Amino acid sequence: MCQLLGMNCNTPTDIAFSFEGFRRRGGLTDHHADGFGIAFFEGAGARVFLDVEPSAHSRVADFVRDYPIKSENVIAHIRKATQGGVNLVNTHPFQRELWSRYWVFAHNGNLEGFSPPEGRYYRPVGCTDSERAFCFLLDTLRQRFEHEPPFVEFYRVVSDTVGWIRRHGTFNFILSNGKFMLAHCSTRLYYLTRQAPFATAHLVDDDLSVDFSELTTSNDRVTVIATQPLTDNESWTAFQPDELRVFKYGALLKSG
Amino acid sequence: MCQLLGMNCNTPTDIAFSFEGFRRRGGLTDHHADGFGIAFFEGAGARVFLDVEPSAHSRVADFVRDYPIKSENVIAHIRKATQGGVNLVNTHPFQRELWSRYWVFAHNGNLEGFSPPEGRYYRPVGCTDSERAFCFLLDTLRQRFEHEPPFVEFYRVVSDTVGWIRRHGTFNFILSNGKFMLAHCSTRLYYLTRQAPFATAHLVDDDLSVDFSELTTSNDRVTVIATQPLTDNESWTAFQPDELRVFKYGALLKSG
Repeated sequence: MCQLLGMNCNTPTDIAFSFEGFRRRGGLTDHHADGFGIAFFEGAGARVFLDVEPSAHSRVADFVRDYPIKSENVIAHIRKATQGGVNLVNTHPFQRELWSRYWVFAHNGNLEGFSPPEGRYYRPVGCTDSERAFCFLLDTLRQRFEHEPPFVEFYRVVSDTVGWIRRHGTFNFILSNGKFMLAHCSTRLYYLTRQAPFATAHLVDDDLSVDFSELTTSNDRVTVIATQPLTDNESWTAFQPDELRVFKYGALLKSG
Repeated sequence: MCQLLGMNCNTPTDIAFSFEGFRRRGGLTDHHADGFGIAFFEGAGARVFLDVEPSAHSRVADFVRDYPIKSENVIAHIRKATQGGVNLVNTHPFQRELWSRYWVFAHNGNLEGFSPPEGRYYRPVGCTDSERAFCFLLDTLRQRFEHEPPFVEFYRVVSDTVGWIRRHGTFNFILSNGKFMLAHCSTRLYYLTRQAPFATAHLVDDDLSVDFSELTTSNDRVTVIATQPLTDNESWTAFQPDELRVFKYGALLKSG
């Protein structure tokens, strides 16, 4: 299985602190050593950094640490391969365009016997269950809607499609189009919203603290989503099994 | 206008030497200072590094120089914006999936009044003529072929579509799917094939030489494509106007 990290904010924020703890789980404090990736939305544009090296030792991860990109939507993933070899084409997050927006997706879990029909609009390049699920979800949305529908209709189709996919196994995932972030829990996912008054946070995976009151303004709001809580002195909320939550501007927009 | 760089090889090769000269044109030896990007295929997978900073001074470009990725197909681009603001979403190369492969595209030129109908399968996210042309080309191919056709049929549709697009203006571009590299010249494009016996090459844009005989085996073959020759002691071949050339394993596969 893998580990997921997401960040959704109301102002461009760097993920350096969370990423520093998270990346250590890729070969140092945990065994998810089959590559990693991190995607940053900047407006409608996206930058995706991928590496097949363990994130704890990856020079790409060092670069991401040393060059903090400010973003309102970030998705990171460290991989413990279940389906598909350890190579670039199977490394999350995956990216596609739908309705003139980029969409980025990362998955934790294992879908057994998940072989949807070949997509009309989206097809996987690698051979993971994860990329198949992402393409199937986008293909379903695109077949249903020629253009971006009202959010309530979008959410209903995503919810129905996810309900079908998760019958095949564990399907924890994070998805973003740069405007909002959608997270689904099958088995394990936590989130935390930081807002004023900000306090000091301390990492689980490293003896490192940061005082967010020194780095933020009183209007900032940042939600962090992770497979396991990243800090040991903050109150993380566990998702319920089969729960789908959508965050926008760092706040919960919808759950079900 | 922008500058293009492509590399197509029969063995994974690092592009560090060519890139070092090329990147200096982004704000140092030339004025193409509106961002840059470079895409490396590794098997069917692709890594795309983008930055809105001038490549001569970009920390992303420093990273690419210091972390030489070996690849059989590389496309780089430095931008002088004509259409579309200087931001990430308008930064080349662009990437999409077609027929279960990633395709990467970069363009030099300016297409006036080029407004193709909305794509069924591919739509631009940004607002450049370049991304519109890329999406139009892929959409035409996908509408015509449900799956990857024989090369001769693929080439004919590309050639016809490019012939239509270039009526709108200057359309120098490089396109790759990780298996082969296709380059089209409207006004200015050069290429060079290096193979045994290898010799020393000297950059135009920097006082830097490399002796390729020390870095290669006798079986290696590398074609480099660029808007302007990158070295001043090698014999570069100019493309003819409206010429389309396809390279595979570092060798010319087809031209027309």
